[in-house]
Parts: sequence; structure tokens; C-alpha cells
Amino acid sequence: MNIAEESLKKHYEWRGKLETRARAEVKDTASLSLAYTPGVAEACLEIQKKPELSYELTRRWNTVAVVTDGTAVLGLGDIGPEAGMPVMEGKAVLFKTFGNVDAIPLCVRSKDAGEIIRTVELLGGSFGGINLEDISAPRCFEIERELEKRLDIPVFHDDQHGTAIVVGAALLNALKLVGKKLSDVRAVINGAGSAGIAIAEFLTGLGLGDVAVCDRKGVLDKDNAGNAAKAEIAAKTNKAGVKGKLEDAMKGADVFIGVSAPGVVNEDMVRSMAKDPLVFTMSNPIPEILPEKALHAGAAVVGTGSSQYKNQINNVLAFPGIFRGALDARASDINLDMMTAACRAIADTVPEDKLTAEYIIPYAFDKDVHKNVAAAVKLAAVKSGVARIK
Amino acid sequence: MNIAEESLKKHYEWRGKLETRARAEVKDTASLSLAYTPGVAEACLEIQKKPELSYELTRRWNTVAVVTDGTAVLGLGDIGPEAGMPVMEGKAVLFKTFGNVDAIPLCVRSKDAGEIIRTVELLGGSFGGINLEDISAPRCFEIERELEKRLDIPVFHDDQHGTAIVVGAALLNALKLVGKKLSDVRAVINGAGSAGIAIAEFLTGLGLGDVAVCDRKGVLDKDNAGNAAKAEIAAKTNKAGVKGKLEDAMKGADVFIGVSAPGVVNEDMVRSMAKDPLVFTMSNPIPEILPEKALHAGAAVVGTGSSQYKNQINNVLAFPGIFRGALDARASDINLDMMTAACRAIADTVPEDKLTAEYIIPYAFDKDVHKNVAAAVKLAAVKSGVARIK
Repeated sequence: MNIAEESLKKHYEWRGKLETRARAEVKDTASLSLAYTPGVAEACLEIQKKPELSYELTRRWNTVAVVTDGTAVLGLGDIGPEAGMPVMEGKAVLFKTFGNVDAIPLCVRSKDAGEIIRTVELLGGSFGGINLEDISAPRCFEIERELEKRLDIPVFHDDQHGTAIVVGAALLNALKLVGKKLSDVRAVINGAGSAGIAIAEFLTGLGLGDVAVCDRKGVLDKDNAGNAAKAEIAAKTNKAGVKGKLEDAMKGADVFIGVSAPGVVNEDMVRSMAKDPLVFTMSNPIPEILPEKALHAGAAVVGTGSSQYKNQINNVLAFPGIFRGALDARASDINLDMMTAACRAIADTVPEDKLTAEYIIPYAFDKDVHKNVAAAVKLAAVKSGVARIK
Repeated sequence: MNIAEESLKKHYEWRGKLETRARAEVKDTASLSLAYTPGVAEACLEIQKKPELSYELTRRWNTVAVVTDGTAVLGLGDIGPEAGMPVMEGKAVLFKTFGNVDAIPLCVRSKDAGEIIRTVELLGGSFGGINLEDISAPRCFEIERELEKRLDIPVFHDDQHGTAIVVGAALLNALKLVGKKLSDVRAVINGAGSAGIAIAEFLTGLGLGDVAVCDRKGVLDKDNAGNAAKAEIAAKTNKAGVKGKLEDAMKGADVFIGVSAPGVVNEDMVRSMAKDPLVFTMSNPIPEILPEKALHAGAAVVGTGSSQYKNQINNVLAFPGIFRGALDARASDINLDMMTAACRAIADTVPEDKLTAEYIIPYAFDKDVHKNVAAAVKLAAVKSGVARIK
């Protein structure tokens, strides 16, 4: 049985990967009176008087909504909200397993950005944070931006920032191995959806020398900018002014980052890159170029999105600890300082003396990584002034 | 320490009465590949092809949203969505404890019926049912009616129907004790909010002889009908044409049902009722008349909303089993047949030979009642054609 078949069989057995559990035991009239009427009225009145007590007297302090509209689920595209649920439940399982966060999956039956924004906004009082998931670009940018404005709890689109943070961590460590400085490096990103644009933004903020972002038509520039988000990132990137197709942009580049489609990179393209190129080929499950081919063509370090290869660049390294830290700080936001702290914490979890071309990034099951990320994110929240508890 | 103080203390200890629990274990790369990427894609694609598989491959088959806007929480009134959360979490605990239903509390930050309807509608694909809770009248009627139209999952406003069903069960058993037929009986309901109107509707459907509904101003009729819902129920009730205040309506009545305010009924009013009057005085925590006073004034049977007295007429007898049965039948609706079946199942859980004036209704901790209700509701769903599985 292959993974797909085995997973489907398990899904039929699980009948849901998530359930609720009562933390308050109700076993007799006395305990019912405390957890429910009439006793519960007192907790309600306390929150009415002082709304921030909802973080003490209910589960809000530990609860995150995982919200999708089902338009960009994995690599499957727009499969609809119900069909997106297995991924959202899985995400909620990872939130609990790695971050001890109570995550509630909510699949919204609308593709209208305004409706999605309003729906999540109206539910904001029930949660301590919002994780947006698998919402297609460019709507995801507007939805996140607008929700950040309207809500006083963290709003985080994992496909953008989670991916960018983990790519950043892999890059920081891989550069140590090849002895290059981040500020001297030119990268090429293939894929100008939510992940590609967020990676370009984040790495630029981290101090990357230069980056060109490509979509199916080639390098983004004023003549190739299909939407406002692409135009915006085109204006902020590509100092070198490279033009043309992906293969043109890759000539002489130090880093290739693929968040695009299977097989779009060949060995010649890797050979055309600068000395000791880094190749992060993250299309999943089939990468832009197979790792063995990239290595054969001279890549110094290869990372992928898959657990089948070394150096899996996996969002699960970031989001559980990021939300854990943000919730622990009762942060109003997950800002760039917190994301940068998460990135460095992931990189630093690999001890320098253990760092090799096959081990640039921690394993998801390394418990230290989630703890380290949570602690770093909480500290960054406090230092940057968005924490409401210390 | 009184119940209020003790409950508040417990709420600070619990820090949330509900949490999530992972049903899928993720402990290594292999199990991660099955519960999440890449394996999970297969379950997504199956649901995309056949949307009803969301009931097999995700937790939807067992998941209910508990939705409030915080406008009519317990007897506390409009305390807001965050302050309503302790009650919603408590409700979710009862759903799990008594019905093994996974209930997710959602508190909506809007009082606009249209916005609440649209928010819940858009989330309909994530749940197997919707329990509306503590939404003030008359908006609750519109919200429920409209959501029933728009969604193909059960929508149930517990404050209306749950209360009506349990009152109905108490009434059926109490009438056996006093030897009166339901069709010969005249009742008076005090309180014309969601509960009062729903009780009048339901008992009428059950075959009650006559009922007059009163609000603060007295008996509802064409001159006293503050909103459309009151006008509608006024037109359907009060065949006897009684007029005036509550005390006028109660003269000669067989049954008093209070869902109103503390202390509005006195002993003389009970004395003015027909022989062997039944007094269900459910204002909570302080009833319309204290049970000992009602008994002193000649009431044959007294029920209250409180666990401090005999015969607690408590919604928890109904909603866990009702949703359990509806979910087990994958019902598209909770219709009158299913509600009537629930009512009779509750009444029948008290064996005829055990029936006394102090035991007309089962205890919440009687496990049989929830099983009996679930089985009866499922059967009624199948018989009435709203079940999607048998």
C-alpha cells in the first residue's frame, strides 16, 4: 500500500483527526452547578466587567482558529471548503502535538475576500489568534492585511510567513557551510504566489543581497506583473535588473528557491549558477528538480519540501512555536521581529558543530525546536511592545 | 464559599473548560505523512469528488457549532460575546459528557441578524449541526428560520425548543399524576421571549387544550403584541379569550409555566387556579414563586429550573440526545416529529410505577435518558424522511 492509499484508509478509521475534550468534569449536580448554571454566571459577569479576563476564565488564551476557504489546498488548488477540512484537521493536530495549542478548523463557504474578512472578524472574540491557511493569492494578502487591522489578536498566514521563516532558517545555516554572507548573495525565487512573494519579502528584510522573483512567464518586472502583489514585490526586488525567463535569472545566482511546479529546473540551469549553489526545491510532493540531479549538477546544499529527502523545509518547524510564543505573550500581532526571532531560533537549533550539507535544518520531531521558537517569539513580542503579558 | 464564588475559583483553575484532543497520533515521519502531507491529499480529493464523504473522512459527522451573540446569556441579558463564552464552553462540556458530541463554541461579535445568519451559513460546511444559544428574541426566530432554509444540516435554538421539549415531558408526566387529559387542559405561560413562545407552539402541537401567553403587560392579544413573533403566537393561542394581567389569566388555569422573572407569582394566584394545579416556575436561579409556597397554596406538582429543588426542568435532558440522534441519522433538520419523539422519550424514561409528584422528570445524570432520546430522535428522523443514513 502506498502512502496515499494508507492515509485514506487511516482517515476512514479515524473519522476525524480531532475531537473536543472536557477539562471540567461534570459528574453530579454539584459539579454541574460549578461548570454550568447557576455558578457559571459569575465568570460571565467578571468578563463583562473586564473583557481581558476572557483570557483567564475561558480557553481563549490557548485557542487559535485555522481558517481556509479551500481555494489553494496543498498543491491541489481550489477544491472547496469541505475538501480542505482533512488538511485543516491535520494542521490542528500538529498545533496540539508540537505547540500544545487548541486549534479549531473553520472552512468558509465563500471566495469573496470581503465576506471571509467579515466572517473571521466577527469570530475574533472567540480566539486568541487566527491562522489563515491555503487561501489563494492575491486574495490572501488583502485578507491578512485587513484582519490584522481589524483584530487585536495575531493573524498569521502560514503559507506565506511560515514558509518564509523556515526557508530563511535553512538559508542562514546553508550559507555558513558555503562561507557566503547573506548580504552578498543573489537568490532566485520561482513561484509568485503567496509563498514566493512572502519569501522574497522576508529574506529581503533579513538582509539578503538581492532576489529576483519569477512566475510562469519569467522574472517579475514592470512588464510582467499580473497583479498588485506581484507589481509591489517586483518594485522592491531584483536590484541586479535581470530579465527574461527563469533560466536567465538563475545564471550566476547563489540560491534557487522553488515554490512552483515539478520538473521546471534542469541540471544545466543548476550548472549555470554561481559557485557552491544552494538549491531549495520545495514543490511537493514532486520537486522542481530531483535532489540527486541538483547535487549531480554541483549544488552544495539541497533542501526540499518532502520528508523523503534530507533537509525538509517544513512549516511545522515554525507555526506551532510561533503561536505558542505569541499566545504566551498574549501578543496583539505576530510582527516581523517575532518572525525573525523564530527564523533564527530554528537555524540555531542545529548546533554549529553538527551542521552539514545534509543537516541544515532541525527535524520536526526535535522537541527543542518548538520550545526554542516559542521562547524566542515570546521574547521578541515583549521587546517589540506587542505583548500584553510578560 | 457559595456556588458563585466556588465556580469562579474553579474557572480560574480550569482556564477553559474545553480543549482539543488529537485522535491521530503524529510521532514520527511516517505517521506525519499519513495524518498530514503528503498522504492527506487523498482524503481531500475523495471529498472533492463526493462532498458527503466529509462525514466519513473528517469529524463533521460528530461536530456541532454552539453559536451565540451574547445578547441573552442566562438571565444576565446582553453581556456580549466574550462574556458569553463561559456558558458556551459549559454547554460544549455537556454536549460531550452526555451526548459524546464534539461542540465548538463560537461567539459572534454582531447583533445584526443578517450578519449572524451569513456568518453561520458560511461556516455550515465545517459542522454537522448548529446549536443556537442565548440569542435574544425576536432576532432568534429570524436567525433560526433563515439558517434552516439556507443550510442542509440541523439548526436548533436550544433556548426555544430544548426548553419546550423538556417542559412538554414534565407536563405529560404530571398530567398522569393528576389524571387530566392534555386536550382538556388550559395553561398559562408567563414570559413571551424565545422560550415562552416556543413552549406555547410546542405544547399546542402536542395537543394542549388551550394556552394563554403573557408578557410584562399581560395576556398577548391583538392589542398587546409588541413584535411580529408575539402577534403570531397571540393569533394561534388563547381560544378561551382570557384578557388582562397574568393574575387574570391564571384564574381557573390548570397549568402555570413561568419563564419570566423572580417573584411575579404569589400564593393567591396559585389558589385561583383549577383543581390540582401544576406549577412550573422556571425563572433561574430565583423562581416566579418558591416551590414551598406553591405547594402550600395547593399546587399538585411543582417543577423549577434549579437543581436545588425536586423536578428540575433542565434543557440538558434534551439537547445532547437530540443532537446525538440527529447526527447519527445525519439528519438535514431537527423537525417537529423529532422534537416530539424527544419529549416522549424523556417522559417515558421515568417508569410509571416510580412516578410521584417529586419525580416527574429524569435526572440529568440518568444515562438512560440521553440514550433513549438519541434513539427516539434518530428513529423519528428516519420515519419523517430527513435522515441521510439509516
